[in-house]
Amino acid sequence: MAMNKMQGVWPAMMTPLTNGKPNVLELEKLTELLIAQGLDGLYLLGSTGQGVLLSESDRKLVTEVVASVNSGRLPIIVQVGSLTTEESIRLAKHAALQQIDGISSVGPIYYQAPGGSSSMALNHYKAIAKATDLPFFPYQLGQNAFSESISDFVQKLLELPNITGMKLTTANLLEIVDIFNHSDGKLILFSGADELMCQAALCGTTGAIGTSYNLWGQECQYVRKEFLKGNVALATQFMLAFQEVIFTILPNVWTFFRLAMKTRFDIDIGSTVAPLGSDNETWSEDEVIALMEKITEISTIKKVQ
Amino acid sequence: MAMNKMQGVWPAMMTPLTNGKPNVLELEKLTELLIAQGLDGLYLLGSTGQGVLLSESDRKLVTEVVASVNSGRLPIIVQVGSLTTEESIRLAKHAALQQIDGISSVGPIYYQAPGGSSSMALNHYKAIAKATDLPFFPYQLGQNAFSESISDFVQKLLELPNITGMKLTTANLLEIVDIFNHSDGKLILFSGADELMCQAALCGTTGAIGTSYNLWGQECQYVRKEFLKGNVALATQFMLAFQEVIFTILPNVWTFFRLAMKTRFDIDIGSTVAPLGSDNETWSEDEVIALMEKITEISTIKKVQ
Amino acid sequence: MAMNKMQGVWPAMMTPLTNGKPNVLELEKLTELLIAQGLDGLYLLGSTGQGVLLSESDRKLVTEVVASVNSGRLPIIVQVGSLTTEESIRLAKHAALQQIDGISSVGPIYYQAPGGSSSMALNHYKAIAKATDLPFFPYQLGQNAFSESISDFVQKLLELPNITGMKLTTANLLEIVDIFNHSDGKLILFSGADELMCQAALCGTTGAIGTSYNLWGQECQYVRKEFLKGNVALATQFMLAFQEVIFTILPNVWTFFRLAMKTRFDIDIGSTVAPLGSDNETWSEDEVIALMEKITEISTIKKVQ
Amino acid sequence: MAMNKMQGVWPAMMTPLTNGKPNVLELEKLTELLIAQGLDGLYLLGSTGQGVLLSESDRKLVTEVVASVNSGRLPIIVQVGSLTTEESIRLAKHAALQQIDGISSVGPIYYQAPGGSSSMALNHYKAIAKATDLPFFPYQLGQNAFSESISDFVQKLLELPNITGMKLTTANLLEIVDIFNHSDGKLILFSGADELMCQAALCGTTGAIGTSYNLWGQECQYVRKEFLKGNVALATQFMLAFQEVIFTILPNVWTFFRLAMKTRFDIDIGSTVAPLGSDNETWSEDEVIALMEKITEISTIKKVQ
Repeated sequence: MAMNKMQGVWPAMMTPLTNGKPNVLELEKLTELLIAQGLDGLYLLGSTGQGVLLSESDRKLVTEVVASVNSGRLPIIVQVGSLTTEESIRLAKHAALQQIDGISSVGPIYYQAPGGSSSMALNHYKAIAKATDLPFFPYQLGQNAFSESISDFVQKLLELPNITGMKLTTANLLEIVDIFNHSDGKLILFSGADELMCQAALCGTTGAIGTSYNLWGQECQYVRKEFLKGNVALATQFMLAFQEVIFTILPNVWTFFRLAMKTRFDIDIGSTVAPLGSDNETWSEDEVIALMEKITEISTIKKVQ
Repeated sequence: MAMNKMQGVWPAMMTPLTNGKPNVLELEKLTELLIAQGLDGLYLLGSTGQGVLLSESDRKLVTEVVASVNSGRLPIIVQVGSLTTEESIRLAKHAALQQIDGISSVGPIYYQAPGGSSSMALNHYKAIAKATDLPFFPYQLGQNAFSESISDFVQKLLELPNITGMKLTTANLLEIVDIFNHSDGKLILFSGADELMCQAALCGTTGAIGTSYNLWGQECQYVRKEFLKGNVALATQFMLAFQEVIFTILPNVWTFFRLAMKTRFDIDIGSTVAPLGSDNETWSEDEVIALMEKITEISTIKKVQ
Repeated sequence: MAMNKMQGVWPAMMTPLTNGKPNVLELEKLTELLIAQGLDGLYLLGSTGQGVLLSESDRKLVTEVVASVNSGRLPIIVQVGSLTTEESIRLAKHAALQQIDGISSVGPIYYQAPGGSSSMALNHYKAIAKATDLPFFPYQLGQNAFSESISDFVQKLLELPNITGMKLTTANLLEIVDIFNHSDGKLILFSGADELMCQAALCGTTGAIGTSYNLWGQECQYVRKEFLKGNVALATQFMLAFQEVIFTILPNVWTFFRLAMKTRFDIDIGSTVAPLGSDNETWSEDEVIALMEKITEISTIKKVQ
Repeated sequence: MAMNKMQGVWPAMMTPLTNGKPNVLELEKLTELLIAQGLDGLYLLGSTGQGVLLSESDRKLVTEVVASVNSGRLPIIVQVGSLTTEESIRLAKHAALQQIDGISSVGPIYYQAPGGSSSMALNHYKAIAKATDLPFFPYQLGQNAFSESISDFVQKLLELPNITGMKLTTANLLEIVDIFNHSDGKLILFSGADELMCQAALCGTTGAIGTSYNLWGQECQYVRKEFLKGNVALATQFMLAFQEVIFTILPNVWTFFRLAMKTRFDIDIGSTVAPLGSDNETWSEDEVIALMEKITEISTIKKVQ
């Protein structure tokens, strides 16, 4: 596919579930919705999509359903990282048989290399990357993930087969700049902190992948585009409100998005797989609507002074 | 079972594998070996036993094999924590059907509660704890795991059903003391940092669970007992050497223990499940023997001045 | 003074020294230079100005010289924080007798309150703030400075006498947003991380105080203004290069700025007070010129696509 | 002096103050008291002694008074580190003219080297160390002080002139062991965390320097000796209680020790130099006495089962 499609605002797609299994009907509805909204791409089975909490076969099913509904309309990246390298490879190979444009992987789960060495993560990435011909977008795991310099880590990433870009997770913008400046234009960077979407666009990222874009994809896409065209005042006003809303919903983020998606789009995301979200308190519909309005109001302002 | 058996030196048992599946023959040999050595208990399927990297059915198999070989000779605790609460509960219920003396669980894997809240972990623990009548030993995850005070966290742990003790992982002794002092004598504490085995015995721990005791269980048991009897000079000399050896092997700990267990006991632990250990370099038999001798030499000294 | 002058690009003024004492002649030249450049304000005796390394009388002298040369042309804030609260108060009272527009203070130096309590810092700030009628701009010391929430800390800051704003030091933009959103429009925020000057302008800051603006004040002021007017492409290109240059000079920042200021403006900043800068290696004039050109080139581009 | 005197329990001596100036009379009384108690040495003007908050002349006065009263009876180490290297050197040279047995220095105050380089600290230490012929005991500043390995840092320390040992501050025992194992027997290590006094004695430290030993020097000295002779049960019981008391007093440690020293020994330590201690709440005499009794009771037990 054309790499220039790898940009813009991509929802880290939620996976609608019923009793811990994919709810195919709602998944199809969500896929259609996000495509109809004109968003820029779909990122499947990451943290938001509860990828690692689902069985291998359920992950494959989700990939098949979304790829089939999408049918090439939007670029799709599938997160295939899992507890074991073997399962990750199987998921990567499965993705390569669907109409999928790239794969991504989280780093090793649970175990960490002693002394902050990145070699275990790099071995994991390499085995996954070479399993297919798909463009590869590994996770970058935050500032103190490894003891080596960002420069050294980026250099090693660039040697991975099929390496194309990175799915960043950090809220540390200096780290993003550092990655950009050391990647020599060879990495397509997606920022992962929704609450710094516009700030990250000043740091060499070409796209943003996040949870919020399931709900506010169009608003965020509009603001990001306006910002890049020079509407700094709108971006400032939006980001300050967006960040406040995100901080408010964060402690109970799963129940918020469930009710919000139901209220706004009549899509039932279902319950999370425990322990995830098991401590989330419930929201009233009024609270959810009030928070959603904060975001939609600002983003409809066409010109801010 | 009598809770006073919950003490002493317990190997966090390795799980011998062949192509990522339990090697039952070697597992039986290892179980017999550790029992024959007179160690104080067996801790199954923790980080050392690669529990979370094995399938649910393989975890059940390992539990059955060890319980059956042991046949009540040593107390056994099984680590049942897994990516989902449901699987953890199924593993707990399975353990309760075997001749097992307690269950343990790691905290939530991969996902962390925003803002450092412990409520997701506590919900996870509670669901597991109440699934059986077995004594429960949750993991304590290190100083900065949660934003609340240790006092508050311990108070909440004490309210869990069947709570009996904790499997500590921290190398921060002040944290251990803090837990001890707030647990009002109601928690049996196992230290998890082998390299601070004797120091932790000054901090209210009654036992030690660790990787090293697969290989040096008898030596460590001897030194710990001698220390408690007053042989501080032996403990000092041993711990300084033990720590040096641990620091030396740590970057390639999986290949070290594999070769060491083969060399010393003719037990084949097999390869780790990737990505775990995939970055470990190989050791020569001479290196391994030299490091083993450092430990065995000191611990055989009967009286140190 | 009008608070609306508290904005824009302010150099954290260097203090030219000879043998650890202020070099009045060079200090006068530097003051005149920065005023002539049309920068927006002067921040004296902070970390860049080596305030805490100078004697009390030398700090007073520097304040008097700059205030006298400036003679009300630019707004001036003086950093008066010192090892003891008493010295800080004396410096604050001295500043109030000069033509100075505000005072600032670093938090307690060397000692930290146990358990991350902010009360020692707040007592220190309060004693300084109430010593004069000048607007007060305390330092904010970075995310993990205190164990309480930012919301609680900001609330307590707002109760300080004469509180007007904050001199931020953090590179964590979410923290800045959090402070802004909790300050209810009552705090004038100056960002402190030069390398995130434009990104921070999206987060509620109205000005930027930093070392780099001694050397590149006009370039940064131009880019910041252009950014606020909508030239996002220029800002992106500039910030990426600026950050790269800052990362390059950081390990030897003191010798870099000394040679750069001499080369570009013929002002001798002199040696730092050891131990500060004692580990800085020397730069060649060519290296310094090449790095300076990277910055000046981009900022002269009037229109970036 | 004989280096074998550099061991045991040393109070980090408090500096009795009146209005921020040394109270010579009380200082003499405190010195006599600690000598009469048979403690093993005196450490002057560290964090406990508020060294960095006092003027250069007051620091010299304190050194002179204690050296004169002591008159060679106990070994004395003076902490000479200060904001500037020059002042530290002057204090070191002054110490060398008194009857003093060693100097110590904290690392650079306020400024930190970018990227975690230790070179600024080492330059500071070197300049101080070579200023006199006295044995030198620099501070070790805790695990994450520098980005290099402990092995590399210790190697560089060993190259300092007159290097004799270290005043540790860390509560991380593995770090202490690491320093010990890399120092090849060439460093005399004093632990700095009172609450781990006995545990640290298992890690290669030969002495302990701390605040608590002003008040409970004899009790701690007794327990430490008993522990080294094999009374592990006493040490365990004492350390658990000692740690609990330390955690209790820590938030208001300055007012606790002031009232405790007055109550127990009729010595007035005076108020701390603000901002230090400015947030300490007052204690009742009953509270102080109850906490003191917890410590004295246990340490008088001659034999613990």
